[in-house]
Amino acid sequence: MPADPDRPHGGRVLSKDRMEGFSDGVFGFAITLLVLDLAVRPPGTALQQVLHAWPFYLAYVISFLTIGGAWLAHTALTDRLARTDSLFLRLNLLVLLVVVFLPFPTRLIAEALHNASFERVYVTLYGLTLLAIRVLGAALDAYARREHLYSQKGEGEELQSTQRKFLPVVTGYVIAILVGLALPRLAVALYFGLAVYLVVPFRETARALFRHT
Amino acid sequence: MPADPDRPHGGRVLSKDRMEGFSDGVFGFAITLLVLDLAVRPPGTALQQVLHAWPFYLAYVISFLTIGGAWLAHTALTDRLARTDSLFLRLNLLVLLVVVFLPFPTRLIAEALHNASFERVYVTLYGLTLLAIRVLGAALDAYARREHLYSQKGEGEELQSTQRKFLPVVTGYVIAILVGLALPRLAVALYFGLAVYLVVPFRETARALFRHT
Amino acid sequence: MPADPDRPHGGRVLSKDRMEGFSDGVFGFAITLLVLDLAVRPPGTALQQVLHAWPFYLAYVISFLTIGGAWLAHTALTDRLARTDSLFLRLNLLVLLVVVFLPFPTRLIAEALHNASFERVYVTLYGLTLLAIRVLGAALDAYARREHLYSQKGEGEELQSTQRKFLPVVTGYVIAILVGLALPRLAVALYFGLAVYLVVPFRETARALFRHT
Amino acid sequence: MPADPDRPHGGRVLSKDRMEGFSDGVFGFAITLLVLDLAVRPPGTALQQVLHAWPFYLAYVISFLTIGGAWLAHTALTDRLARTDSLFLRLNLLVLLVVVFLPFPTRLIAEALHNASFERVYVTLYGLTLLAIRVLGAALDAYARREHLYSQKGEGEELQSTQRKFLPVVTGYVIAILVGLALPRLAVALYFGLAVYLVVPFRETARALFRHT
Repeated sequence: MPADPDRPHGGRVLSKDRMEGFSDGVFGFAITLLVLDLAVRPPGTALQQVLHAWPFYLAYVISFLTIGGAWLAHTALTDRLARTDSLFLRLNLLVLLVVVFLPFPTRLIAEALHNASFERVYVTLYGLTLLAIRVLGAALDAYARREHLYSQKGEGEELQSTQRKFLPVVTGYVIAILVGLALPRLAVALYFGLAVYLVVPFRETARALFRHT
Repeated sequence: MPADPDRPHGGRVLSKDRMEGFSDGVFGFAITLLVLDLAVRPPGTALQQVLHAWPFYLAYVISFLTIGGAWLAHTALTDRLARTDSLFLRLNLLVLLVVVFLPFPTRLIAEALHNASFERVYVTLYGLTLLAIRVLGAALDAYARREHLYSQKGEGEELQSTQRKFLPVVTGYVIAILVGLALPRLAVALYFGLAVYLVVPFRETARALFRHT
Repeated sequence: MPADPDRPHGGRVLSKDRMEGFSDGVFGFAITLLVLDLAVRPPGTALQQVLHAWPFYLAYVISFLTIGGAWLAHTALTDRLARTDSLFLRLNLLVLLVVVFLPFPTRLIAEALHNASFERVYVTLYGLTLLAIRVLGAALDAYARREHLYSQKGEGEELQSTQRKFLPVVTGYVIAILVGLALPRLAVALYFGLAVYLVVPFRETARALFRHT
Repeated sequence: MPADPDRPHGGRVLSKDRMEGFSDGVFGFAITLLVLDLAVRPPGTALQQVLHAWPFYLAYVISFLTIGGAWLAHTALTDRLARTDSLFLRLNLLVLLVVVFLPFPTRLIAEALHNASFERVYVTLYGLTLLAIRVLGAALDAYARREHLYSQKGEGEELQSTQRKFLPVVTGYVIAILVGLALPRLAVALYFGLAVYLVVPFRETARALFRHT
């Protein structure tokens, strides 16, 4: 609950609880839709089939990591939020729209890797969606800073880590999208690398590993 | 948690937390169902197909904006609520019923734009659903005001903006439904315009744009 | 958050927040699954088809009212809960299992009304599921009373109304199930009547209507 | 809300509310996906068909109990959490990934019991998923203890019961997986026994039964 309902500089104050609850619901749905696709897929002929369908499972893991990473970044962002306003809520809806859209190109990428003719189009669409999630997330963060929506206690390590990783990741996506126009499968491998880079907290992991030794 | 459990004028007091949580879940589902339809749709033959299926993607965007707008209005409404009562909870269920129904006519409208023969029926059903969401939302607001369910701190800018836009939007829907009986595709364009009008916060946007210049 | 973490008479104290959040999620899913079936159903040939498929839409409305009613009763119950214990959480899972199962017999009943040969079996399965939701909900309430899980402030009007309606409704379900063995379509009409009886708050409605006249 | 935002030993403090909300959403989805499979399954020819499809319903009950049990254990764990950190949130995402994956092997096991040739592969995959849920859940608990994430008020009976049951259950899973390589159907029966063992709170049940006699 916000302390002062009407800030002098014009932005409206809304309870952020419902935005968080709604966002969690949509993130959870998006992740589950990925699994729904797994379940819908014809299981075919056991082990050798599962081995043959590896590109689909890789796309599944990339999308899971990407949505998981976007959720972590979103949590870190709203955690530091003192209030929201009308435009923030709408920007947030836009982020959710793209997140919940991701299972669709994920499905296409799996099909693309089977019918080689559409590989370039589908892999490019997939890369653009991944890029859009990252860029819109950063826009949400930039808007919150511009409108002074964050609380005084600072932005926290997780949010700063997301901000620090923004430029390398966006550069990586642009390179991967360009690479994908010629070599779609290499682009998928690059997306996987970028997803891992986004989610793994290198500093914290190093700290946790070396603290107890 | 309500401060005084039994108000003198007969309405019951219920914690509004669960109504909000349940409503957020259903809104989130409704939005995700739209994407599920996207994923179920046969992807066909890449780029030229995607270009050909534009009416489906437009209906998707309209429905997303409409559910997003209904969620924003719902948030603004419950944000100001001091308590709920039995009838309010049931009215709210009715709103959710129609919101979660929207993906169904959205799907029909996409099909309608392919088989021209059912265009009128399906586009009319779609328009009536959009209208019902708006009218039931306004009924919820009217009931809350009549039963004095709002807290003292007033209704807030977002809720007032929803109330101000009610008459123009309902008039717009009725006109679009009538237009749709003769020219279904024009009606879809009108629904898109109304959805944008509903969601864009003109005053806040103007304020945000001109404050920093 | 419970005030005293370990009550003397042996039951464990758990935060009830997560049980409510999880239950809301599952109730929301169950209601949405009903709509998913609507969307999956082949839409066929416009208006005359929609008119022909009326039994399906009736079953949809009955199930929606039943899940909505079960959610209202569940809310009223947990609203008065001071704490939960291990067995209560498991009983609650059982209630959710049956609630989330309801869309399945709903689908069967729609099919049953098309292929007359399975009508009796499917309508009976549907009735047994509706009965199970009501009986397990009452068991949850009885367990909470037996283990003194309710807070001091009493059970509230909504919960008492659910308790008052229990015997008539269960009697009604048993009669409808028996009737359904001979006349399945009459049973469906009875289920509709019982669903309306369960959800409509007669006292509150009368009070709201006559207060302002 | 955490009391002290920055602990001296380096771990970051994050609000645990959103982790709980997000986890509840994903658990709820996973359980609902099981039912979705029920609904997708062709209902065939009434009663004798339902009787013939018993292996599917058994797998459904096992998976429901397993996810329900994992949710109970997760609740007990987060209930005692004073704070979270970056790695804990990522470990939690990994647990959710496997939980939401379970409906997929559940579906395969149902198919396996029809086409005998893939029984071994599918039943083994199912067993490995059940094992992974349990092992990752225990890893989450171990990590929380190692990093002192639990609050002072202790771990509580439910969490201790989960810890006590860990070794017997994991041993049981390993035995069942090995048995399943030769006798898949026996393994399914063992998984059912282990699921019941995990969910039933023997001590509390005995206490509740004998207290009132």
